[in-house]
Amino acid sequence: MLVVMDRGATPEQVDKVVKIIESRGMTARPIPGGDRVSIGILNNKGPVDPALFLGLSGVKEAIPVTRPYKLVSREVQPDDTLISVGNVTIGNGHLTLMAGPCAIENETQAMTIAEKVKEAGGKIFRGGAFKPRTSPYTFQGLGEKGLQILAKIRETFDMPVVTEVMDTDTFDLVEAYADILQIGTRNMQNYSLLKRAGQSGRPVMLKRGMSATLDEWLMAAEYIMSEGNSQVMLCERGVRTFVRHSRNTLDLSAVPVIMRESHLPIIVDPSHAAGYRDQVIPLSRASVAVGAHGLIVEVHHKPDEALSDGAQSLYPEQFEALAKWAGSVHALLKE
Amino acid sequence: MLVVMDRGATPEQVDKVVKIIESRGMTARPIPGGDRVSIGILNNKGPVDPALFLGLSGVKEAIPVTRPYKLVSREVQPDDTLISVGNVTIGNGHLTLMAGPCAIENETQAMTIAEKVKEAGGKIFRGGAFKPRTSPYTFQGLGEKGLQILAKIRETFDMPVVTEVMDTDTFDLVEAYADILQIGTRNMQNYSLLKRAGQSGRPVMLKRGMSATLDEWLMAAEYIMSEGNSQVMLCERGVRTFVRHSRNTLDLSAVPVIMRESHLPIIVDPSHAAGYRDQVIPLSRASVAVGAHGLIVEVHHKPDEALSDGAQSLYPEQFEALAKWAGSVHALLKE
Amino acid sequence: MLVVMDRGATPEQVDKVVKIIESRGMTARPIPGGDRVSIGILNNKGPVDPALFLGLSGVKEAIPVTRPYKLVSREVQPDDTLISVGNVTIGNGHLTLMAGPCAIENETQAMTIAEKVKEAGGKIFRGGAFKPRTSPYTFQGLGEKGLQILAKIRETFDMPVVTEVMDTDTFDLVEAYADILQIGTRNMQNYSLLKRAGQSGRPVMLKRGMSATLDEWLMAAEYIMSEGNSQVMLCERGVRTFVRHSRNTLDLSAVPVIMRESHLPIIVDPSHAAGYRDQVIPLSRASVAVGAHGLIVEVHHKPDEALSDGAQSLYPEQFEALAKWAGSVHALLKE
Amino acid sequence: MLVVMDRGATPEQVDKVVKIIESRGMTARPIPGGDRVSIGILNNKGPVDPALFLGLSGVKEAIPVTRPYKLVSREVQPDDTLISVGNVTIGNGHLTLMAGPCAIENETQAMTIAEKVKEAGGKIFRGGAFKPRTSPYTFQGLGEKGLQILAKIRETFDMPVVTEVMDTDTFDLVEAYADILQIGTRNMQNYSLLKRAGQSGRPVMLKRGMSATLDEWLMAAEYIMSEGNSQVMLCERGVRTFVRHSRNTLDLSAVPVIMRESHLPIIVDPSHAAGYRDQVIPLSRASVAVGAHGLIVEVHHKPDEALSDGAQSLYPEQFEALAKWAGSVHALLKE
Repeated sequence: MLVVMDRGATPEQVDKVVKIIESRGMTARPIPGGDRVSIGILNNKGPVDPALFLGLSGVKEAIPVTRPYKLVSREVQPDDTLISVGNVTIGNGHLTLMAGPCAIENETQAMTIAEKVKEAGGKIFRGGAFKPRTSPYTFQGLGEKGLQILAKIRETFDMPVVTEVMDTDTFDLVEAYADILQIGTRNMQNYSLLKRAGQSGRPVMLKRGMSATLDEWLMAAEYIMSEGNSQVMLCERGVRTFVRHSRNTLDLSAVPVIMRESHLPIIVDPSHAAGYRDQVIPLSRASVAVGAHGLIVEVHHKPDEALSDGAQSLYPEQFEALAKWAGSVHALLKE
Repeated sequence: MLVVMDRGATPEQVDKVVKIIESRGMTARPIPGGDRVSIGILNNKGPVDPALFLGLSGVKEAIPVTRPYKLVSREVQPDDTLISVGNVTIGNGHLTLMAGPCAIENETQAMTIAEKVKEAGGKIFRGGAFKPRTSPYTFQGLGEKGLQILAKIRETFDMPVVTEVMDTDTFDLVEAYADILQIGTRNMQNYSLLKRAGQSGRPVMLKRGMSATLDEWLMAAEYIMSEGNSQVMLCERGVRTFVRHSRNTLDLSAVPVIMRESHLPIIVDPSHAAGYRDQVIPLSRASVAVGAHGLIVEVHHKPDEALSDGAQSLYPEQFEALAKWAGSVHALLKE
Repeated sequence: MLVVMDRGATPEQVDKVVKIIESRGMTARPIPGGDRVSIGILNNKGPVDPALFLGLSGVKEAIPVTRPYKLVSREVQPDDTLISVGNVTIGNGHLTLMAGPCAIENETQAMTIAEKVKEAGGKIFRGGAFKPRTSPYTFQGLGEKGLQILAKIRETFDMPVVTEVMDTDTFDLVEAYADILQIGTRNMQNYSLLKRAGQSGRPVMLKRGMSATLDEWLMAAEYIMSEGNSQVMLCERGVRTFVRHSRNTLDLSAVPVIMRESHLPIIVDPSHAAGYRDQVIPLSRASVAVGAHGLIVEVHHKPDEALSDGAQSLYPEQFEALAKWAGSVHALLKE
Repeated sequence: MLVVMDRGATPEQVDKVVKIIESRGMTARPIPGGDRVSIGILNNKGPVDPALFLGLSGVKEAIPVTRPYKLVSREVQPDDTLISVGNVTIGNGHLTLMAGPCAIENETQAMTIAEKVKEAGGKIFRGGAFKPRTSPYTFQGLGEKGLQILAKIRETFDMPVVTEVMDTDTFDLVEAYADILQIGTRNMQNYSLLKRAGQSGRPVMLKRGMSATLDEWLMAAEYIMSEGNSQVMLCERGVRTFVRHSRNTLDLSAVPVIMRESHLPIIVDPSHAAGYRDQVIPLSRASVAVGAHGLIVEVHHKPDEALSDGAQSLYPEQFEALAKWAGSVHALLKE
């Protein structure tokens, strides 16, 4: 933290800032400049709240210098985290394709899609049993019945499954069935849920909030890790901007920045970012090329009849072509 | 919903859209235009998902025409909702001032501030007992001890209290103490929490999500109302934009638009929008002038020592001046 | 500027940064911290480009500490700028109402509206003669004929006029007729136009760019001032965000921040921010209450027939009521 | 355009809307729905202004249905535009790499970089002679001297050059030297400049405005085409969002959407989007993979000493590797 004083700040005002810093057990280092004083803060444990200083008279700004996160940081753990689920490894050097329908609608639908995903080269099956929906009047998922279908898919196709867990009330239930627990966009800062996920033995896929900064996202991952669960992967799924031609704006620059700041794997979900099938394929290609550790995409054999998000679901043959392409480009990246 | 076809859409493609509409029990009304066909959807109950059509060949766009919400809509209930808490009325024609510290830190702090809030004309006391914090390493609130202090304030000063409820696990506890249950920005789409709030007998103050559209916000209120609780007030607290000179951008146009679309009261929180004391006062004035039903602001007698958000807390004398000014302007508005 | 080094930066990397700073005639002051070094830059004249350092190995971040602007800054000129146009004064302590149609359509229309604006208490008449339009196929203004009508209004009603100047080619022409030259949102960073405006003897009203930060906006004003014209006023007119219920999001926090950072007057344009008449009135009230030095609003006696922006134009009687209200609230603010 | 009436709109209010539509020579087609009337507008030439209806009593919304642009539209011209400059072809099926320094600093710098760009496979050389800069106090380009250096590069290396034209005053000069005229982000809606570019015989590269929608961007291209110049290519360079870890957010979904809506080639500039070298390479890979017709990137042999934007300039060897990779992926895309 660097506290920048007003040009005409008095020595007493500078002193007050120094005292506050020292009273919290940190070190204050005033830096007299040409026309104003700044005060550096050293030896802080954890983040310093700018609000401590911003209201004081004579203070112009409080500029954070170091990052607020710790366990998720590459400075703390230089080597990439690798996550193993069944016989699949996620992270450094691997490109993991996850695919399936938005929602599990019934056993036939799910099994049909799972077979095609498996054949096309998908490694992990996705499908929602509990669905967070903007409207209380739309299909909310099959619940436990959906989880049972997921379990059958895992056994039948030897494919781990990822599904969303929406709240602490149903956590034990979802945890009993899923291989990877997904925490959705709307719950990225649901701290009770994050803490519960931190106590789980399952890997967690944490989706980025609709308008979360990377710091906020990594801090949400820090909540999970600080409770003891280090198997966390991040998932970029687009952010909300003024743009309207896609549902959200896929922020691919997040991939290299997360890789520089953190050791956690990062997956991209182009389906929810795009919202329209015609954009999903090019954005999937871009996500592989930017260097993500994996893709999670929606696939449906009859998207026109899907109960949710049909417009963004790929046909199985489109997913197959994408998977082949992704493999070629991933190989080029490793050259 | 209006489904707009491509210029060269075939009669078969138009037919398919019509069939899908009719298969869902709605009425399709094709509108042949100069150079393309559009298809209106009538007699739908509740929202129609654009995704049903967006993926079909020959379909260019699916444009929602009616709003997805129902119970919160002024079209369903033309008269303003009035909410009574103790001897305070919130809504149509009233301007309700809510004030207090960001977090309850201890009894002395809270009682000192409450006394000043009461004297200055504040009608409802605010204070956090459970605090959602971006970092797992910062002060998370006093929990039940904080709730007990709030109860003491209600009794001592005959002032209802509003405090945040963060999850379903602690819901019963918070509900037992609070007069108004606040659902925070990060939880605006925590549907499990919304449903639980809908089963409560307490009024709920629903803060707008960081990047929520008015439709999403009203749909979140619809979740609460659809479970049976009609005592909902909305709270605008700034949204995330590219702007950096304030913590968030206060969207005051939301106030007249919400008032046109919904019968629910709307409160403004300029403290969290601004982030800096010097902006809180002018934005509070603006919030009254725009016509909001109330303000919720942070007040602290020693903001330099506050455990959270000191930089945005008003001094008691500032709140007093603001309350006086607000009264004058509110009177002008009613002339 | 503060250059923050990586945790493991070598002494050679630190040295390189120091050398670059010194080679540009500035002073480098390394600040050894607990776990990383930062380097402060002192004695810089004008802004330092972060790009000088961001690409160097061992550099983590380059954080600007001081503001890049000079002439527009309150640190350089503590007293408010006052601008006089005819018998109207704009700035500190005054609330100036500017009103008129979006575009001058013909003499009858303009004279009719001008009379009503004058009667209602408007001090400056606004009206476009050259209109920047998104589509090349829509009405682009009357050009010089419109300017002549503006001149007639000034003489008939003894009211200064403000109108937009779109390019250097028509600058001399517009300058010959207008009392205040408006530079529009889309031209905020049209540097050739800004420089020409800086050589004018007329006051300039500089609208904020659609997504301009306050620094960029003030730097655009700096362009004008650096050419010798110190009669600059700023105009907040809403910024582009994800929000869709208003045309733009009016950023009222810009008003107190500009007032703190700069001595230039700041006007608010709620018409272009809102886009809809029903929002213009409450946002106008809010703009007065937040403390702006003036309002510029669209008024039309037959908005249904307006050639542009009819939906956001107030009826004359609405403007009259607004002007009266604004006077009362402005008086309250000065108490 | 679809005009949606309020639920309780009277027949008179509906009539008024119909009359306004018909008075403008268009056809009104009322669509009586279950609980409200909508009115479709047919036979309009060019865009209809929603403002015509939004202010009328009884009108709830006016929803544009067709796109406002014409000449740029794929509906008007189904086949891709191909642009030839010297022996280089831009558009359908080609991947064109453009590279060079942000600014031409001197002949040695420019010639050194041009040689390396040519060797690495760059087809077009980029370099600024007139630079739009946020601050009036920073390096503004070499002007005509820079253009002369560009001409020398074209002759020496048989490589067409692209450079920015900032205003109508210097248009003739830049046009005399450049092979492709770039219109920058800040000038995307400088209509005087667009019209002048429309009268040029040179191809134009139109960068997307900082917060432009695709409609606004295509309408800006329509300005150029409507003056007679059909050699227009678009350039996505990132948009302004709340994100701060990159200078702008690269909106790669714009590429497939532009390709669907328009026949014009689309190029991506990852350098200005990213702002940091470490992001430029992965985002360049993503831009190729998403299917863009070309890349324009900054390359500098001594980025630490660059007069502008050094932090985002690639080293020549990085560009060489990128060009090779791009070729391989482009080949995969054409399979």
